Amino acid sequence: MSKYTLGIDYGTQSGRAVLVEVETGNIVAQSVKDYTHGVMDEYLPDGITKLEPDWALEHPADYIEVLKTTIPDVLKEAGVDKNDVIGMAVDFTACTMLPVDKQGEPLCYMDEYKANPHSYVKLWKHHAAQPEANKLNMIAKQRGETFLKRYGGKISSEWFFPKIMQILNEAPEIYEATDRFIEATDWICLKLTGKERRNSCTAGYKAIWSKKEGYPSKDFFRALDPRLENVVDEKLSADIYSIGQKAGEVTDEMAELTGLNPGTAVAVSNVDAHVAVPAVGITESGKMLMIIGTSTCHMLLGAEEKYVPGICGVVEDGIISGYMGYEAGQSCVGDLFAWFIENCLPFAYKDDAVKQNIGIHEYLRKKAQMLKVGESGLIALDWWNGNRSILVDADLTGLLLGCNLQTKPEEIYRALIEATAYGTNMIIETFEKNGIPVNELYACGGIADKDEMMMQIYSDVTNREIYISASNQTVALGAAMFGAVAAGKINGGYDSIVEASRKMAKLKEKHYTPIPSNVRIYKKLYEEYKLLHDYYKRGANDVMKRLKKIKSDVL
Amino acid sequence: MSKYTLGIDYGTQSGRAVLVEVETGNIVAQSVKDYTHGVMDEYLPDGITKLEPDWALEHPADYIEVLKTTIPDVLKEAGVDKNDVIGMAVDFTACTMLPVDKQGEPLCYMDEYKANPHSYVKLWKHHAAQPEANKLNMIAKQRGETFLKRYGGKISSEWFFPKIMQILNEAPEIYEATDRFIEATDWICLKLTGKERRNSCTAGYKAIWSKKEGYPSKDFFRALDPRLENVVDEKLSADIYSIGQKAGEVTDEMAELTGLNPGTAVAVSNVDAHVAVPAVGITESGKMLMIIGTSTCHMLLGAEEKYVPGICGVVEDGIISGYMGYEAGQSCVGDLFAWFIENCLPFAYKDDAVKQNIGIHEYLRKKAQMLKVGESGLIALDWWNGNRSILVDADLTGLLLGCNLQTKPEEIYRALIEATAYGTNMIIETFEKNGIPVNELYACGGIADKDEMMMQIYSDVTNREIYISASNQTVALGAAMFGAVAAGKINGGYDSIVEASRKMAKLKEKHYTPIPSNVRIYKKLYEEYKLLHDYYKRGANDVMKRLKKIKSDVL
Repeated sequence: MSKYTLGIDYGTQSGRAVLVEVETGNIVAQSVKDYTHGVMDEYLPDGITKLEPDWALEHPADYIEVLKTTIPDVLKEAGVDKNDVIGMAVDFTACTMLPVDKQGEPLCYMDEYKANPHSYVKLWKHHAAQPEANKLNMIAKQRGETFLKRYGGKISSEWFFPKIMQILNEAPEIYEATDRFIEATDWICLKLTGKERRNSCTAGYKAIWSKKEGYPSKDFFRALDPRLENVVDEKLSADIYSIGQKAGEVTDEMAELTGLNPGTAVAVSNVDAHVAVPAVGITESGKMLMIIGTSTCHMLLGAEEKYVPGICGVVEDGIISGYMGYEAGQSCVGDLFAWFIENCLPFAYKDDAVKQNIGIHEYLRKKAQMLKVGESGLIALDWWNGNRSILVDADLTGLLLGCNLQTKPEEIYRALIEATAYGTNMIIETFEKNGIPVNELYACGGIADKDEMMMQIYSDVTNREIYISASNQTVALGAAMFGAVAAGKINGGYDSIVEASRKMAKLKEKHYTPIPSNVRIYKKLYEEYKLLHDYYKRGANDVMKRLKKIKSDVL
Repeated sequence: MSKYTLGIDYGTQSGRAVLVEVETGNIVAQSVKDYTHGVMDEYLPDGITKLEPDWALEHPADYIEVLKTTIPDVLKEAGVDKNDVIGMAVDFTACTMLPVDKQGEPLCYMDEYKANPHSYVKLWKHHAAQPEANKLNMIAKQRGETFLKRYGGKISSEWFFPKIMQILNEAPEIYEATDRFIEATDWICLKLTGKERRNSCTAGYKAIWSKKEGYPSKDFFRALDPRLENVVDEKLSADIYSIGQKAGEVTDEMAELTGLNPGTAVAVSNVDAHVAVPAVGITESGKMLMIIGTSTCHMLLGAEEKYVPGICGVVEDGIISGYMGYEAGQSCVGDLFAWFIENCLPFAYKDDAVKQNIGIHEYLRKKAQMLKVGESGLIALDWWNGNRSILVDADLTGLLLGCNLQTKPEEIYRALIEATAYGTNMIIETFEKNGIPVNELYACGGIADKDEMMMQIYSDVTNREIYISASNQTVALGAAMFGAVAAGKINGGYDSIVEASRKMAKLKEKHYTPIPSNVRIYKKLYEEYKLLHDYYKRGANDVMKRLKKIKSDVL
């Protein structure tokens, strides 16, 4: 009799359950639930309380609805008996965090706080804590805090402490009433098992925690704000659980809600990008995964801790136990191509694509892949949404150079794709320059799945083999794998994520190999990209920042 | 009884006649004839003989057809008696030149040469003589030839001697058979009057002649090629006639062909951009005319000869007798906006414009003029077709900087318009830095006539008043004015172009005045343009040239 494991993947707009056969990694059923309240960036659920710009909240009740809806769905769809479901795990966007009371109930559930925006879940893309992040970075730099090095030199406004600082500054009554601030992924685990099991991944990547050094010192927090001196003791938990551990078991109450057996093993929660790594079969160093969507996350295992400037973070046991987990990112990939289609695609092309009855990306690819490398004479800087790695500068903007009167839309489209490939290559180079080898590339996500031209360009630009995930739900599959590990071999699962990965991860047969004649020309083009990259980064010509300043002055 | 004068304007695709009332400058009739052979850039008229890339030829018989068709047309349309037509003049594109025999017959008329491409008219935009121009510039520089200074430091491949050199190199038999090489504008005058009257304008701007120094020396020509030592004596004429002089009178044969009276006064021929200057009322220094079309010509009178780097040329008596005539240019203006519409306009906009039943430029302008100065955060370098003035470098390419995911098509459109304004301002600055004041701007051409937003941007960027020609046929009107001067006061015309200009030139009432708040922001943006301009011009980062090299290597 087959055994099954559940992966619950909490995205930005919806949650998804996949039911996976433990032996093979095959997904036998899946179900998606859109969040009832969606992303709240204009009003609270009351429809009256207006949010400031850059806010992005969610409602924790929506997350429980996902469990209640999708788990019964997949059991029913697959016709699988709950006795054959041996484990489950959750992955989530991060840092997505909320304030809860002593019982673990969100403050926004309570009448006295529900009109206060700070009582809700702050979504990863809540960007309103930038002043707090700036202050944190300034003070950390002044004090020579060593933790900065683990995060490429900068703490993001998206992360845990800037978000707490914003609550303290703007709603001290919420800060006061909060028993604990918790990552949403850990909160789901708490709800499922009744146990708070903070995971090493979000603690490490988002909350400035490390296995060796723990959280920043009380001195540091006092320097930020005297009221924060004991924030860790008072509002967090210093008990951190490793990725791959079992967190506990499904409670009776949650068994009732989900249709699972009480006692089903639940893994320590995790983050979406991070669970994808074993799901493509990466369990050792030297292999970098690109999760390509609107933006791209780069995940990489390393044997040693090295400080790499401009990356998002390095966390021991952050991805796979026993390895240093490195993360980097590009803030604008799929979004850039969507921008192009929306704003720059000429009428005749759209018209023609409709006549040929093919999608517009496919139509453009057909034209773009006829071009020889270097033929367009174009080069772009892929900074339409700033630069996450390795410049960590949201104020940089996009550039297109080399246009003439013969320049065609497909040439611009291809130049934008190439620019994102150069951006990835810059990240790879930076890792390698700092002692972290990157030998092979892996990719997952819709673009990696569909866009063969782009993957070949990435292979040619990086001069590396690229392997593609065979699953179109790589992330949720990764979560399910951790569920199987939580169950353990004794219950029909696996004793380690490495073992689970070997059995359950699959790659497409088609992979991408660099074409030497293309590699040669892309080497030259990449040198031009680097020259422009270095010219426009802080210092030589800050035109992009000055234009932003002029813009904000006139608006 | 009113008197009339004829202006014949030979453009790239067609020739136009206007019949103008001498007293008022009112155009009473006009007629256009498309050239039967058009621009020949693929095949000779035989449809077999293939032309190389960058070639552009015309057929001289087409020019005669223009006279034969349009002159009777306008006489008939206006109901004007030929006895009331007192004079005429021709303007032409330049350098547009052809080889003729002793009788002034084009070699391409002859059976033995008509299959040879070099026997036809080489149009101004025939760009295949670049190797010859490079050689000429190199040798002139090595020898320290002083004439280079008059042309901003460089002789263009479009001009007279590079074109002759190409004929000598590739078709020595045509060179041998040629009695004279002649500008098409002078050839029409020769045909009309039977007299060769080479004009000081094309001799000066295109054939390296100056009133003080004449043509380059025999030594110089020998250094180019021993066969060219006596090119001036053997293949040209050193008799140069000033703009504004009378060339002769319409011959009996041409009177027959055109329906004019024999003996009608014909002016020394001229060039399209140059005749436009008095047609907007400019007859003194300090006033710059911009003739805005696919590209822009900048015409300016100066009291003294100064050497201005990067301009097209300075010629004594080249525009108006008694003044130094300065010419500069931007190689891509209307063409740039046309490129944008063709290649970058999203389908939703086109769709919407059609629904609103307005032109697409008008639709975009409506959106673009809602933007505040500096709001888009964009800046562009207007080098989609290289840079004529002041960098004189055809290998530079376009750049757009400052894009983000919110960037809208109308913002890009406006940034391109602004870039051309910055390019004009760079030319103005260069003139002023070198001692030639530019106090006021004048504009003519379809864009100047229609695009109020663009003209206001130009006024704000340059911080100068702009006056617009009231005529939509400024160039042809200018030619007609020279016709009235050829006739002279005694025949009902004028004794000088200054006098003719005062009577016949008209400006629109609406003119453009800089808006101080815009001027202030454009000053900042222009500083950014200059910084980028200087970074990408030869030296600091030759990325544009290297990309072109890569491109030509792979094609």
